[in-house]
Amino acid sequence: MDMSGARGAKAGRERLVVIGADAAGMSAASGARRLRGPDELEIVAFERGHFSSYSACGIPYWVSGDVDGRDRLIARTPAEHRARGIDLRMRTEATEIDVAARRVRARDAATGEEYWTSYDKLVIATGARPVRPDMPGADAPGVHGVQTLDDGQALLDRLDRTRGRRAVVVGAGYIGVEMAEALLKRGYEVTVVDRGAEPMSTLDPDMGRLVREAMEGMGVAMVGGTEAAKVLTGPDGGVRAVVAEDAEYPADVVVLGIGVRPETGLARAAGLPVGAHGGLLTDRAMRVRGYEDVWAGGDCVEVFDLVSGLHRYVPLGTHANKQGQVIGANVGGGYAAFPGVVGTAVSKVCDLEIARTGLREKDARRAGLRFETVTVESTSRAGYFPGAAPMTVKMLAEHRTGRLLGVQIVGREGAAKRVDVAAVALTAGMTVEQMTFLDLGYAPPFSPVWDPVLVAARKAAARVADGACRGA
Amino acid sequence: MDMSGARGAKAGRERLVVIGADAAGMSAASGARRLRGPDELEIVAFERGHFSSYSACGIPYWVSGDVDGRDRLIARTPAEHRARGIDLRMRTEATEIDVAARRVRARDAATGEEYWTSYDKLVIATGARPVRPDMPGADAPGVHGVQTLDDGQALLDRLDRTRGRRAVVVGAGYIGVEMAEALLKRGYEVTVVDRGAEPMSTLDPDMGRLVREAMEGMGVAMVGGTEAAKVLTGPDGGVRAVVAEDAEYPADVVVLGIGVRPETGLARAAGLPVGAHGGLLTDRAMRVRGYEDVWAGGDCVEVFDLVSGLHRYVPLGTHANKQGQVIGANVGGGYAAFPGVVGTAVSKVCDLEIARTGLREKDARRAGLRFETVTVESTSRAGYFPGAAPMTVKMLAEHRTGRLLGVQIVGREGAAKRVDVAAVALTAGMTVEQMTFLDLGYAPPFSPVWDPVLVAARKAAARVADGACRGA
Repeated sequence: MDMSGARGAKAGRERLVVIGADAAGMSAASGARRLRGPDELEIVAFERGHFSSYSACGIPYWVSGDVDGRDRLIARTPAEHRARGIDLRMRTEATEIDVAARRVRARDAATGEEYWTSYDKLVIATGARPVRPDMPGADAPGVHGVQTLDDGQALLDRLDRTRGRRAVVVGAGYIGVEMAEALLKRGYEVTVVDRGAEPMSTLDPDMGRLVREAMEGMGVAMVGGTEAAKVLTGPDGGVRAVVAEDAEYPADVVVLGIGVRPETGLARAAGLPVGAHGGLLTDRAMRVRGYEDVWAGGDCVEVFDLVSGLHRYVPLGTHANKQGQVIGANVGGGYAAFPGVVGTAVSKVCDLEIARTGLREKDARRAGLRFETVTVESTSRAGYFPGAAPMTVKMLAEHRTGRLLGVQIVGREGAAKRVDVAAVALTAGMTVEQMTFLDLGYAPPFSPVWDPVLVAARKAAARVADGACRGA
Repeated sequence: MDMSGARGAKAGRERLVVIGADAAGMSAASGARRLRGPDELEIVAFERGHFSSYSACGIPYWVSGDVDGRDRLIARTPAEHRARGIDLRMRTEATEIDVAARRVRARDAATGEEYWTSYDKLVIATGARPVRPDMPGADAPGVHGVQTLDDGQALLDRLDRTRGRRAVVVGAGYIGVEMAEALLKRGYEVTVVDRGAEPMSTLDPDMGRLVREAMEGMGVAMVGGTEAAKVLTGPDGGVRAVVAEDAEYPADVVVLGIGVRPETGLARAAGLPVGAHGGLLTDRAMRVRGYEDVWAGGDCVEVFDLVSGLHRYVPLGTHANKQGQVIGANVGGGYAAFPGVVGTAVSKVCDLEIARTGLREKDARRAGLRFETVTVESTSRAGYFPGAAPMTVKMLAEHRTGRLLGVQIVGREGAAKRVDVAAVALTAGMTVEQMTFLDLGYAPPFSPVWDPVLVAARKAAARVADGACRGA
């Protein structure tokens, strides 16, 4: 164990600098503070925005009206962080990292003042930036991203002002479908334009089709397999329509939900290593590879995929929090390691629940794996119990070995969180045969006597056994 | 692999005899039939009752009115089984097993006829019998068990006839609390009398207390720490009150929910081995120990507990179904093994959800384990999301090693099925430190950014680390 940090603390006060004051950065800062008091460790954090530690994932529900007000999404205010001995400097953007001299340059947006701050330890938690489509009109008034609280506020202001009731959502991933729900709830006619043939490209297309059909059933116009090419504006300069291929979709408001990329410009300029997906590369302690005193976590890093053995980019608040906790422990002189992810994600569109974990068919192929797939229909409760809702479970298992590779679920109430069983099984490297006999909670209000995930596992195990016979 | 069964099938038609036509027995029969057709395998099944393959777990919900009618609880009728080539003989009770001569004697209740049937393979699935309290008046009209569909019908008939609205439930386990809900829903004043200080003895008392408080909040009178001693009857001979210690609880109907015991009289008379809990002992293939051609499954067997390494008695439909499937595969010439259980159970009382898996404190002590416990409060959804419901999670981890030993959850919507994550982690032998980083589904409508189970794991991991330091 490297005790240099602890020794340094005894010799004199160290300074930790954190860039970015959202989930990863402030979890790291708070965790370090729990282990080392202000007389041992000074903590300075720079945040270029107006808010700290907020739930970006909650923005669609604020827009929909489910969540009552922006402040509900803020887990901890700058004042609360400061009260815990963290020198959090808001509206202050880090503009340069000088790794050799161990210092960070930052600019105060209010005063324009720019200054260097030296560090003993550095945490990079610069997050992600939304992909802006390269199309004419993308910057017109009425075209909105939903990445930050400021974005959310701007969109809500637009919705309050506009009298039209037609919304176009560009992109049919998590944010896109969640924003479709939010706009539906606000009484909009919603069109979702996506270049994929089916929505939710984090699912296989056969499962994405179920999402499309359900969303069409909710009255959302789903336009797949077409790229939004242009935003048309009206006489007031504001958005009027979205053009995709030869069709024109009238729009009083346009929401962009086409994903995010790691925000790593600063780190790359400093020579820090990034991976194939553009995210920073770290070890399991979340230390930037090759840099003893620099850590990184959250939406700006790549993560190790425990199923495929490859690196992926999975910007999610839950990983950011865990990684921040790991960094905090390590920076504070303790020890923790982030083992990686299995790629679990859950979402909903009105009462439709969508979940996935592990590998899709194309991920498995890309990882060089041969596999079997099964798809089963089951229900959330005993079939005879009121409210039993149908769900479809797709399962991938490795050919011959039967190792679980992935699960996708589309259903109604009680569907999505069932994916957690598969997430744990993936982490443990279980086979689908082993999963068949998992002792899951059973009572008629909660599950059929064979839980839907077990029904899929049982069928997958039979398929694997068959496959082995055919292969022999 | 033992191929004698398959060879026998080629030489001539074998006969499988099944005793008991509920979950385990008929899963076994159906599974065997899928593998071997009627010209290879004759299947004879004896059932002493009026019904086959029904959900006893559903009876409280039929009584409550949630489930519309008895027939909804029947998964497969005798006629359906017969259509699949199973010679199912209803109202026919097996009265003797002659293992040496490989034959079973049975009596047809309608004709009184008694006859021997020889078998090549035998499946014992005789289920459980309810514990009847040894108290005066326990057989009075108005005192009801809820083990069989006939019991459920008798209770419903009583409820229709009686004009009083006072119900006493004896026993505060799963059936007791579920029946309390059912009777509440039917407009009864409900008193639950139990000898335990707190209800739900399958939980630790500190968690049972939460159940008691919640049930009291629903208007149920919870009388703990007292044994029902006597049933008093009125002038019509029917139940009038339950006496427990010095108090008298007026009752127009009494429901007994004090658990079940393995129904193994027949098997014991034949010399088959039973364990400390009175259940038949089998190997992992569900073959009765020491008997090559006799299998047993369901509520009449003991199961191996993967966490403690001891045998337990866990009568649950989900185990019965799985064991039946294993027996069917093995009897049919295939191979399957039931690995054991971790002791998962879920239940609800109105909107209160209750779950447990693994070991309670006293189980852990009995197994000779040292452990740490933590209890955390969290919510089912992000705290800011509408409908976020509080839940309490208690976790036991082994001292020093940090291996997960058990989880108990009491909460509202979205609480109970979270125990499945712990059930899989127990099966995989995970430590609480490993659990902390499980990649569980996160989105605001489904979970806080740290799932409640992970919050508990994180705290337990810290406790284990502390404990190791103290021990050093």
